[in-house]
Amino acid sequence: MLSQERLSRLRESLSRISVEEARRKQKAGVKLIDVRDDEETAKGSPVGAARISRSFLELQIENVAPDADAELMVLCASGARSLFAADDLKRLGYSSVHSVEGGFQAWEAAGLPVEKHRQLSAAEKERYARHLRIPEVGAGGQARLLSKKVALVGAGGLGSPVALYLAAAGIGTLGLIDNDRLERSNLQRQILHTDDRVGELKISSAAKSLKAFNPDIALNLHETRLNEDNAQEILGDYDMVIDGSDNLATRYVVSDASTQLNIPMIYGAISRFEGQVSAFWPNGPSRGPCYRCLFPEKPPASLTPSCAEAGVLGVLPGVIGTIMATEAIKILLAIGEPLIGRLLIYNALDCSFRNLEIAANPHCNQCQSNRGSATLAGRS
Amino acid sequence: MLSQERLSRLRESLSRISVEEARRKQKAGVKLIDVRDDEETAKGSPVGAARISRSFLELQIENVAPDADAELMVLCASGARSLFAADDLKRLGYSSVHSVEGGFQAWEAAGLPVEKHRQLSAAEKERYARHLRIPEVGAGGQARLLSKKVALVGAGGLGSPVALYLAAAGIGTLGLIDNDRLERSNLQRQILHTDDRVGELKISSAAKSLKAFNPDIALNLHETRLNEDNAQEILGDYDMVIDGSDNLATRYVVSDASTQLNIPMIYGAISRFEGQVSAFWPNGPSRGPCYRCLFPEKPPASLTPSCAEAGVLGVLPGVIGTIMATEAIKILLAIGEPLIGRLLIYNALDCSFRNLEIAANPHCNQCQSNRGSATLAGRS
Repeated sequence: MLSQERLSRLRESLSRISVEEARRKQKAGVKLIDVRDDEETAKGSPVGAARISRSFLELQIENVAPDADAELMVLCASGARSLFAADDLKRLGYSSVHSVEGGFQAWEAAGLPVEKHRQLSAAEKERYARHLRIPEVGAGGQARLLSKKVALVGAGGLGSPVALYLAAAGIGTLGLIDNDRLERSNLQRQILHTDDRVGELKISSAAKSLKAFNPDIALNLHETRLNEDNAQEILGDYDMVIDGSDNLATRYVVSDASTQLNIPMIYGAISRFEGQVSAFWPNGPSRGPCYRCLFPEKPPASLTPSCAEAGVLGVLPGVIGTIMATEAIKILLAIGEPLIGRLLIYNALDCSFRNLEIAANPHCNQCQSNRGSATLAGRS
Repeated sequence: MLSQERLSRLRESLSRISVEEARRKQKAGVKLIDVRDDEETAKGSPVGAARISRSFLELQIENVAPDADAELMVLCASGARSLFAADDLKRLGYSSVHSVEGGFQAWEAAGLPVEKHRQLSAAEKERYARHLRIPEVGAGGQARLLSKKVALVGAGGLGSPVALYLAAAGIGTLGLIDNDRLERSNLQRQILHTDDRVGELKISSAAKSLKAFNPDIALNLHETRLNEDNAQEILGDYDMVIDGSDNLATRYVVSDASTQLNIPMIYGAISRFEGQVSAFWPNGPSRGPCYRCLFPEKPPASLTPSCAEAGVLGVLPGVIGTIMATEAIKILLAIGEPLIGRLLIYNALDCSFRNLEIAANPHCNQCQSNRGSATLAGRS
């Protein structure tokens, strides 16, 4: 058979590695591509693998591996198709490609970690169709978003766009933490609410809007203000926390609890025309600082006027909140370069965006003392 | 009287200019500050003047005039307070300050243009309280926003955040131009709509959401697709047009009509993880290019896949749309540095923002041939 001859030649000419070696390399950052078809990967795929059917490999590989000099590993069902796929990639210009011997069968037999994405329903395929078109998201990424639980502290200026766009993206469970009631002056920027709900609890108003927008996502309503006593218990249920709070006391509580729980924290802040965004996950795969590394102690209240005191351009939390939601989705999907170790500063008056590098403080009494003791969640 | 002696001395030592001279300088870009109190300016103020009561002059002047070497003019009711105010500013470090002789009385008597902002109602003061706290907006700016009419082309991905945040900001009249019906796949990003409205006209759904959010703004619903035949008639009613359309044919129509009408056009575009924003107003005070200067001819459709074809990260139009709304509000208030002559390019994957300078094309067959013939609206 011609195919057998060709396979023999490929076996000799290409680099082949065992599933154990593939897992080691994957942990060290080498990308693993599962080239099986959707029907096959639906039943499970190596944890963290990018899934690109061989049919579309040449067309989509650059989205996952833009650098042709970077090492790549390809895996199929039993190790045959991956040889052809590795050969395809070499022809395309990728210089260092390994075929994983034995494929997914060997991976499973070796007890290596597998993730199984549930199939999307027809209604979900319709709703999230624009995500399915993007290789970096796709059916696997959408299923992952649908499986995630995200806590949002504050259903106000920042929380409004964050909640709406996370609901739009199909985050499976949103936890809303707030005990404020809606005031008319909130409606200059808090697009999650409506005029006739002034006086209602913000989480109740938020739940009505979010349910009407996307009835498929689950909502947990926490009518409370986060504090040192309840933070770990509440946030312990979630994969990520987004800080849309309006005060520094809560922000430190969110920071400390997320460090202790080792979940990523998305940070945003606004005043008048200026806003900031960052992501903190000091013991996550990208390391970087925690909020306390940047601001070890709470400054006096006189130096940190609230929106009520200083005023805020109504659309500013929209810009900052949508960037926060984008960073949240990137981290949940493990795509792109998240704002970990970077602080984005936006000035609306001149439309300038500055990206500052920020480093962990080796003497930080929060994230450094938790380093090592926390379980590394990794990017799974 | 001590005050008369002091005034005489100030009259000798300070630069005084006539109202006609002040108007000439103002047209050339010199800032005019009306230092009368709110009750006085409520009845009218020189067009385009910044209004800072003398009581808060030292505290707020830097927001309006950050450069102490720039020329400044101060105006009061009859020319006395403005001498004290000019002296205040010189002490503060401003090197070139003129007092306008005869004040607002002389300005009105000379028939120079006046703008009258209506007083805000108690309910408006409550709703827009966070804007009133910002010197660059304040009661005058909020009244200006409430008097403006903005057309929005498209009530979809970009139109959703634009419409919500312009409604939040209290833009007096929003014109929505769209003839599409809501599809379920829109709900992955179009936060203006709800799940139970699938099948409805988007402008009807949008009107329900916007009315519930801010019942005080007026809505004009244009159930149509903008084309060469109807664009000037529809857009002729508005102070600005925001392009949230999803196709290039409409974008050229919006560009050409806005150039001919000499109203600013806010531009945004998205695909997958990348978005662009700019503002075009080729015969406005900042000049700059029009959309056709950048892209003289429509590229073939094969080079410009739609969101339906290429896919789009759902939150991307949120980021781009909120930046578009911010630029719209800045131009309506004539504050800050608008994105005129600049193209902002955002990549969500690495959270990078690039600001590219873009110039008018001297051979542009649209904006150059309209130059001069169009009435200069100025920044009023």
